[in-house]
This record gives sequence, structure tokens and C-alpha cells, in this order.
Amino acid sequence: MNAYHPLNEGEAIVIASDLDGFFPSGASLRCREIGDGNLNLVFHIIDDASGKSLIMKQALPYAKVVGESWPLSLDRARIESQKLMLDGKLVPELVPIVHRYDADLALTIMEDLSDHVIMRQGLMNGARYPHFADHISTYMARTLFFTSDLGCNQQEKKLAVGDYINPDLCKITEDLIFDDPYTVSSNNNIEAAIEDAAALLRSDGELQMEVAILRDKFLTKGEALLHGDLHTGSIFVTPDSTKVIDPEFAYYGPIGFDIGAIIANLLLNYVGQEHWSSEESVRAEYRGYLLNTVRDIWNGFQDKFTALWDEHGVDRLASTAPGYRDYYMTTLLRDAAGFAGCKMVRRIVGLAHVADIDGISDDVTRERCQRQALAIGTALIRGHRNISSIEQLIDSVTAPVA
Amino acid sequence: MNAYHPLNEGEAIVIASDLDGFFPSGASLRCREIGDGNLNLVFHIIDDASGKSLIMKQALPYAKVVGESWPLSLDRARIESQKLMLDGKLVPELVPIVHRYDADLALTIMEDLSDHVIMRQGLMNGARYPHFADHISTYMARTLFFTSDLGCNQQEKKLAVGDYINPDLCKITEDLIFDDPYTVSSNNNIEAAIEDAAALLRSDGELQMEVAILRDKFLTKGEALLHGDLHTGSIFVTPDSTKVIDPEFAYYGPIGFDIGAIIANLLLNYVGQEHWSSEESVRAEYRGYLLNTVRDIWNGFQDKFTALWDEHGVDRLASTAPGYRDYYMTTLLRDAAGFAGCKMVRRIVGLAHVADIDGISDDVTRERCQRQALAIGTALIRGHRNISSIEQLIDSVTAPVA
Repeated sequence: MNAYHPLNEGEAIVIASDLDGFFPSGASLRCREIGDGNLNLVFHIIDDASGKSLIMKQALPYAKVVGESWPLSLDRARIESQKLMLDGKLVPELVPIVHRYDADLALTIMEDLSDHVIMRQGLMNGARYPHFADHISTYMARTLFFTSDLGCNQQEKKLAVGDYINPDLCKITEDLIFDDPYTVSSNNNIEAAIEDAAALLRSDGELQMEVAILRDKFLTKGEALLHGDLHTGSIFVTPDSTKVIDPEFAYYGPIGFDIGAIIANLLLNYVGQEHWSSEESVRAEYRGYLLNTVRDIWNGFQDKFTALWDEHGVDRLASTAPGYRDYYMTTLLRDAAGFAGCKMVRRIVGLAHVADIDGISDDVTRERCQRQALAIGTALIRGHRNISSIEQLIDSVTAPVA
Repeated sequence: MNAYHPLNEGEAIVIASDLDGFFPSGASLRCREIGDGNLNLVFHIIDDASGKSLIMKQALPYAKVVGESWPLSLDRARIESQKLMLDGKLVPELVPIVHRYDADLALTIMEDLSDHVIMRQGLMNGARYPHFADHISTYMARTLFFTSDLGCNQQEKKLAVGDYINPDLCKITEDLIFDDPYTVSSNNNIEAAIEDAAALLRSDGELQMEVAILRDKFLTKGEALLHGDLHTGSIFVTPDSTKVIDPEFAYYGPIGFDIGAIIANLLLNYVGQEHWSSEESVRAEYRGYLLNTVRDIWNGFQDKFTALWDEHGVDRLASTAPGYRDYYMTTLLRDAAGFAGCKMVRRIVGLAHVADIDGISDDVTRERCQRQALAIGTALIRGHRNISSIEQLIDSVTAPVA
């Protein structure tokens, strides 16, 4: 059974039963495959009698989103489980527990989080997560600091870079985020109503130059071990708890990419509130909540990252050179702004969209939101190298846009 | 005989005799160990009868410069031979031919270049190398372009990054170039006469902030496969030929680091000409020759690198986004200027000096040259982020300095 093949539900139950001491012996398990099936199978295994449950995630050797024609290395399952286990040491309260990783089956057995909801859905429902900014800024500060040259042995970091080389998944990002939206590509997914706005992306040289700069950073700037796909669909929440999942895109890249991902997805929801909050006063208040969350995430990240730097900094010169820390943090904010812009744009014209926008049923509203998301995204890309405070970033969201 | 141990001359002869078809069978070989013995043994094997000869370079498991207490991975011999063989494909006329690499013995058998001289010595003798700027700019343009995300398959590059992870040798650079000169360190080697100038390096916060920025680039910016130690002691020359050797520091780093290394070493010789050219008119002319060489190297590099970009560029956006190439080349020049400054400073106050300066017998002249090298080096570091042309870089060399 240990040679790789996609498991069926019966096989998943057998494997779960074998997990030492988790389920009562002789438990009668049931299993349901609940993945969206794009890249992975996800089995939910439940013992009704004890109330215990598990998730088993198995990587598929292809991306289903474009048929079986986009082969993907199973090695990403190793990378994902390894990153989850590392996160388990750095931020144990913010990730699911990993019970076992089976390399042959590209299978990770982990904690069931079905008492949580996917954050994207929560935000579409108008829920608020008062601890989220604190949690996610802690997640980013600790996972990024302790894997960077600022917070770990710099020679061991080089070996870790080798462990997380992730060509297939990086290629997805390089194509879908940093290339396709700015050219004619069969990967794009553009609604006819906004074809004119999409055409502008393809002809705007100034914008493309900024995207090229950001693309180069994604390709070459190995600052820290990223989650690599930190959007609101990769985060499980309750009002009290935050759990970051699905780090299969992990690799050593620019820190701003993770920060930008979460900001972009909050801003896409911000835009979509034109639909999700039907009352105008509710909408304004919820949008204020979202922008405060963006602000609190950056400020929390900055406070925690710099506190770690003070307490655990390993780089003598980086810790003593006057002004360097401020320079470094401003660079991170600029990178985050630019990457956030790229991530907003790709969710409107690229292959993979988000429900915050695509779930808007009314054509006119959806079109307006798509245009607004593009306007904010392109403003962030264009301006990213001149941003020097989080307030400036937020201003570029609320400024009247074309 | 194949388990690792440092070879003696007799063993080296046996191995050389076994090299298929190189020496006539039954040849009577003689061997001399000619290494400076810091990091490697270097055997020169000669068959007087046929006139054929070879070099065999064997890595030692420690750096002798500080006794046997600085252990160094033998893996650097693999990295060096692999990089030499890659260079052999990209610029065959500019590197020695590698005949064989023996992993167990950390041994590379290669072409004997003893008809060439070490360039540093040649420059101290006042020789001119009219083709050198053309050769070395070709070397850098081709080796750096075709290993960057601009000139090779971007997914294969990621795997190559893993192949060239080189923690031990990078650590030497990180310590000796980007840390020690700016703090009190037992690794430093400072003549008493310039202790005041060295003390300034330790107290100059503005300078240290720029060094911290450059150090971060060395640690994180994996642009291309560097030589990693491209000084005039790593280059064999004749008036017609240039051969780059000793790439054991190779790793994926910032392109400007290689360019800066060669510029720094030409400028150290420029400074030292106060001693090496005793007549003032000869000195002025030779210094002009050296500055022209710096200019020709940058301009040649820029022309060739951008021509390769036009002809072989693989990155769609980098090739089409207007203005991006100019932005990229200016960034390379700035990086090169900053790294050149760091490399000049470390050769005056750090562990390893250069004969261009240390070989100056007169104490007063040597002190003046050391101060001038520090002045030029620190000016390059301080100004590197504002340099936008090679003329500006050259101006900062010739401007009157304290």
C-alpha cells in the first residue's frame, strides 16, 4: 500500500486506524473526501463514538485546475509537512498539529480544524476576528524572523534554502502572478465587461516595469522561509483562534510577499463589501474594520519583528549599524505594498479568482468591484517604491480611484 | 589510495600517470608542490621529455592561514571543479581545461597555465594587458547572464542554487569582508600607523549602515552563479590571454559582487602605483591605463550583458517592460561600486592583505597608500546607492581624498 497512488476513502481509514494511540482501538471510522480537488485529496476521518477526528491531505501529481496536463512534483507534500512542523515549533498555537508525514504516499496526517471556518468565507459573512491581526502578525514575525539571516545561524540557513527549493510551485506564482496578467495568455480569466481594463495592464509600460522589479525579487531575494500563499483561503479562524494551513508554496523568498498576500486578500474583501454589506452604514463600518486590520497587522508585525531583532538578532552589523533596522523595515513595507498590488490584479484577470469578488451575483456590481480592485492593485504596484508608512498604503486604498 | 588524505608528491605522480592518454606511457614525471598552502595543495607535474605538464589541486580540510583550527568542507573542491567545467562551456577560452575531478580526494586535475603570470604580479611589474578588459567583461557577462533568471531556465536555476550552496566559503566572506573590518576582531590585521583610520571604520555609523545593506545583499540576493573571489590573484594573464582560476567561493549571489571584486583590485593597484611606478610621468600614465581598464570592463560588461539579454533573454517581462533593463544595469553598477569599496577596505584592515599595498617597502609610502585605499573604499561604500554611471565611479576614485 506504500507505493504512491491516490488513496480512496477505504484506504484512508486503514491508515488512520494505524496511527498509534489516536483513535480508540476497534473504533468504527468514517471518511469523506472533502478537498476542492485542485491539487490535493483531503480526507476527513471521524470516530463518532469518541468524537475524535483527523485530516489526511494527499498531494496529487498534477494540478486538476487545468486537467491532468499540469504535472506537479509530489515533493511539495514534503515541503508542506516540513514547513508545518517547523511552524509547529515557532508558533504552535497558530498551525494544525502534524501527526505523521508519509513520504511514499505524499500524505500528511494532521489535526482536524473543522470547528474553524475558512477566513475568506467568514469575511464574506461579515464576521469579525478581533484577535486575527495579533495572531497573523505573530505568525509572520516569528516564522519570517527565525528563518531569516537576522534570526538563525546563517550557515544553517543556506542548507535550509536547499531543503525548500520548490521549482514547480514557484513556477505557478511566477506565471500566474508575475507574468500572465500583463500579457495575452490562455491562463488568464477575464470577464468580457472589463476587457478594456485588462488591455490597459498589457499596454502600461510603467506598471510593467514595477512588476518586473517585483518579479525579480520573487525570483532572487531569499530573505526568509515564506508560507508562499498566505491568502484568506489558507487561514482557518474562529473569533478566538487562527490556524494557518497549506504552506505547500513554501520557499526562501522576499518577506514582503507573505505580508502582501494577506493585505491583498483583506483589500479584495474590502472592495467586495459593496455586495456583501448591503446596508451602507454597515459597509462603511466593516470596511473600517478591514482597514484597521490591515493597519494592525503591519504595526503588529513591525513591533514583533523588531522586538525579536532586539532580543534574538544574530547578525552583529544588522543589529548595530544605526538606521539599518528602519531602512530594512521600510523596504519590507514597500515590498509588501507592491506584492499586495500584484496579488489583487491577478485575482481579477488571472487564472484563479476569489469568491469575495466572483461571488458577487449582480453583474454591474461585480464589474464595478473588479475595476476598483484593479485600480487599487495597480496604484499599489505603481507607488510601492515610494511608500514609507502604513498610513500611506491605506490612503492609496481609500483615495478616489478611476 | 582513494580515501581522502592530503597527497604527497609521489602519490600525485601516480595519479597523473593514470590519466588516460595525457602523458606518453612510461613517461618519467616530476612533481613539485607549489601551493601557497592556505587552503589547498597544488601539484605541478611535468614530463620533461614531451614538455607536457598538468596542475593537480587538492583541497585541504582546514584553512592553514589560522592553523588547523578553521575547518573547511572539502565539498568546495566539488563546487570549484563544477564551476570550472561550467565556465568551460560558457567561456572555454577563459578558464583552464579540467581533465578530471576526483570527489574522494577532493582533487581537480587541470591544465597547466605556467606560461601565464598571476595578474596581480603583472600589474606590480607595470605590465599592460590590452585584451584583459575585453576578456574579463566577456567572462563576467557570459557566466553571470547564463546562470541568472534572465538567461537560463528559471526552474533549473533553482536546482542549481541547491548544487552550489557553499556555507563554509560564504562564511569567510561574510566575516572577513562584511563584519570584521567594522569591529574589534582578532581576524583583523591593522598596521599601527593607521590605527586611527581603522578606528574611524568602527565608529562611522553612516558607513556601517551602507555595509549592512551590502552584507544583506551578499546573504540574500541570489542573482547568478558568482565566481565569488574574482580578484587579480585569481586571474592568470599574458598580453594575449586571460584565464580565470580558483572559483571555490562560487555560489548564487549578487552579480555586482564579482564586478566589484575586479574593480577593487585594480584600484588597489592604482593606489599602490605610488610605489610601483617610481617616475611620476610613468605613474600617471599607468594609473590612466588602470582607470581606463576599469571603465572598459564596466562598459564591455554592460554591452555584452545587454546584448545577451536581447538575444537570449528567457524572462518575458524583463525583456519587454520598458526601462527595466536600464534600471537593472544601474542597480548592478551601484552594487558593484559598493562591493568594490568593501573589498578595498578589507584588504587594508582585514585578515588578508594584497601585495600591491603590503609589498610597499617604505613605511611612509605604505601608510599613505593604505590611507588612500581606505578613503577610496569608504567613498565608494558611502556613495554606492547614488552612482549612476561608470564616470561617476571613476570620479570618486580620482577626487582628492583625505
